[in-house]
Amino acid sequence: MKVLRDRILADGICLEGGILKVDKFLNHQLDIHLLKQIAVEFLRRFSDLQVNKIVTIESSGIAPSVMLGYMMELPVVFAKKQLPSTLHDAFFTTVHSFTKQCDTHLLIGRDFLSPGDHVLFIDDFLAYGNAAKAINDLCCQAGATVEGMGFVIEKEMLHARQLLRSEGINRIESLAIVDSLENGVIHIKED
Amino acid sequence: MKVLRDRILADGICLEGGILKVDKFLNHQLDIHLLKQIAVEFLRRFSDLQVNKIVTIESSGIAPSVMLGYMMELPVVFAKKQLPSTLHDAFFTTVHSFTKQCDTHLLIGRDFLSPGDHVLFIDDFLAYGNAAKAINDLCCQAGATVEGMGFVIEKEMLHARQLLRSEGINRIESLAIVDSLENGVIHIKED
Repeated sequence: MKVLRDRILADGICLEGGILKVDKFLNHQLDIHLLKQIAVEFLRRFSDLQVNKIVTIESSGIAPSVMLGYMMELPVVFAKKQLPSTLHDAFFTTVHSFTKQCDTHLLIGRDFLSPGDHVLFIDDFLAYGNAAKAINDLCCQAGATVEGMGFVIEKEMLHARQLLRSEGINRIESLAIVDSLENGVIHIKED
Repeated sequence: MKVLRDRILADGICLEGGILKVDKFLNHQLDIHLLKQIAVEFLRRFSDLQVNKIVTIESSGIAPSVMLGYMMELPVVFAKKQLPSTLHDAFFTTVHSFTKQCDTHLLIGRDFLSPGDHVLFIDDFLAYGNAAKAINDLCCQAGATVEGMGFVIEKEMLHARQLLRSEGINRIESLAIVDSLENGVIHIKED
């Protein structure tokens, strides 16, 4: 996706530890025009899928998921990282964040995932794949089926696709595939 | 806003402690059609305002803000509750949550609020008004001007408007105004 690639190269910043900072347009300040283009591209790539629900993770997955949900006319469910005082009956799992170097919980209320659900999972980043694996775990607990996973940016050098394929997720689309952040230089594959 | 009022009365649940649970459609599972109607109503009510940016708070403010930002063609900035490893230069403030009975931090990167900014703040709930006051504080730190505040649901009996008016915020719009949750019964004002 050329417009996204160009934007990451123009406004993304590579920090120490292989962290790609894209908060100017994707996960702190949101460029609405780019978000719309991202949603259109997801729509195009997943046009053959039969899904009835988009699932994402708070907070950075919400914006692209809402835009895509609007275009696909699908409800969006976002997994929470903390148990709200209002939620008493949820599917739980644990996920290790290498970026933040800690374990976090992920949960979705039992009312919002069912055996009949065919889920499209959307998130801003695919890094080590642990968050995506955790969502698959929550869907499995509910008897729901993950039909596909879409990521705005994938860090290919972390080999998350292998992990996700071993979990039975074969349909993965990433709109920008970063294959190196070595020496502070962002390298993104051509389409 | 009749459709929102009807939805809260149909699917909202009143929990002990005056907590209104609306996670079926607003802050866990998102009803995209309702979100669109919410954005259209905000657009109508704030049609006279000159603003260049929507500001909200993660996570539950993001969905209505993205939908409104899409319709108004404005960028959205969401305040974060934790300092990300990628952010080193931010405006900070503290906010007390009566619902969660704890203090949390709110921060916005210095790159994303400037003296020339005219801000529309959007959030899911107006309860005691502390989060909204904190956003006004962050905007003041940056020299930005909050031109208006819009909430999907206001708990009028908590008198947040008085607090916000004392902070100089005079333009407040709430799409559903709850004036009582006594005895577990949700009462919402007619338009």
